[in-house]
Amino acid sequence: MLTPISKMLIGGIRGFSVMAAKRGLIFRQMFEPVSCTYTYLLADADTKEAILIDPVMETANRDAKLVKELGLNMTYAANTHCHADHITGTGVLKKLLPGCKSVISKDSGAMADIHIQQGDLIKFGKYSLEARATPGHTDGCLTYVLNDKSMAFTGDALLIRGCGRTDFQQGCPKTLYKSVHSQIFTLPDSCHLYPAHDYTGQMVTTVEEEKRLNPRLTKSEAEFAKIMNNLNLPRPKQIDIAVPANLKCGIQDD
Amino acid sequence: MLTPISKMLIGGIRGFSVMAAKRGLIFRQMFEPVSCTYTYLLADADTKEAILIDPVMETANRDAKLVKELGLNMTYAANTHCHADHITGTGVLKKLLPGCKSVISKDSGAMADIHIQQGDLIKFGKYSLEARATPGHTDGCLTYVLNDKSMAFTGDALLIRGCGRTDFQQGCPKTLYKSVHSQIFTLPDSCHLYPAHDYTGQMVTTVEEEKRLNPRLTKSEAEFAKIMNNLNLPRPKQIDIAVPANLKCGIQDD
Ligand SMILES: [Fe+2]
Ligand SMILES: [Fe+2]
Repeated sequence: MLTPISKMLIGGIRGFSVMAAKRGLIFRQMFEPVSCTYTYLLADADTKEAILIDPVMETANRDAKLVKELGLNMTYAANTHCHADHITGTGVLKKLLPGCKSVISKDSGAMADIHIQQGDLIKFGKYSLEARATPGHTDGCLTYVLNDKSMAFTGDALLIRGCGRTDFQQGCPKTLYKSVHSQIFTLPDSCHLYPAHDYTGQMVTTVEEEKRLNPRLTKSEAEFAKIMNNLNLPRPKQIDIAVPANLKCGIQDD
Repeated sequence: MLTPISKMLIGGIRGFSVMAAKRGLIFRQMFEPVSCTYTYLLADADTKEAILIDPVMETANRDAKLVKELGLNMTYAANTHCHADHITGTGVLKKLLPGCKSVISKDSGAMADIHIQQGDLIKFGKYSLEARATPGHTDGCLTYVLNDKSMAFTGDALLIRGCGRTDFQQGCPKTLYKSVHSQIFTLPDSCHLYPAHDYTGQMVTTVEEEKRLNPRLTKSEAEFAKIMNNLNLPRPKQIDIAVPANLKCGIQDD
């Protein structure tokens, strides 16, 4: 089920060495405490091209300040999916950091400057993120994989010892199970996985750990579906505000 | 003011190659949201020897669970100093992970299995942490520097764009200023600095960034002292419980 890399390439040419690896990569994980969302800043220390993954409206000023302090050029603010629990920061960031373009999957149905899909690459300097379609939490969920496969940003498809819920926004347990097993668990065991959320103060996991320890995704597909269909979770507090806002890239993006 | 490395060496012999660097290093940063404390897990992936820095009582079970899941042997649970804002997890961890020894500076006046001071090394597998005395927030504050100087754990001596307060627990602005400038700002510019706390969702900074951007420590010593003496901060809520408990390694450590 692995589709060949790259129908589309954002931001430049491919063909850097996989061995270039982490040399010169700036990486920051940041936390928004109300929705427990992680925002990721990645940049090429040489070219200063930078990308933000899953910025949150409430912390957009913090993120923009850091980008300026580090002398970076924010080229893309990308969401892993159309979030239901917080309003994206992409709209605000486009105002704070002129030139920054918002990115989301075509399948999300949300507005953005750039729509991407399975196999597309988002380039920043000598690095790039490959978009892998990992639907099941929502139709438009993408996992972003760093070119050397040392890191992947899984959004809500895979959380640390958990996964995103499948009971709204086109959620489907069987689809999510297939996505994680075919697109994430096929990455190298050592690949570090960075989720969109964690509610226990943990920040990162690995493919090896989740293949061995994830209490849901180590089960069979049928058992997984049964678990997911019986979670009986409350409706997210912010969903009626967040989803309509995120469908147009944050309420500030008018 | 840099003292020659290592009067004492905990856990084994010195002499690994600085170039061994990050190969095989397991590293996890974890967050405790009530006191906004960061706990750090470091381990040698080959020998499984592990160390925790600044564990918190409330999250000790989470930390112990991860240690077991990763198949690690927790040899040391070390504090950067005698904290005033939370109860240390070292006492609980010693019960959860038999064989684990608590570590703190001699100058802290706190109980622990092992007391260390400037220049001592805490070894775990082929890695070690060098203890640097960085008093000023408290008398016993240590900064732990990884052997290849790529990472340092600054406790409350240096925070991201800030520093620990100096208005209780033997606090002294002039001492803190000297500590940061002589023991932390002399590390390589690229050295990643991991604090004991952050209240803005940021997780790491670098020597270069703090030398250039820290709003307090880029000032003169006199200006720094003036800033610190006029913060008028409220008394920490937990201080009357936390300090007596931490002086005996967490209330569970009887
Ligand atoms: Fe979501
Ligand atoms: Fe402190």
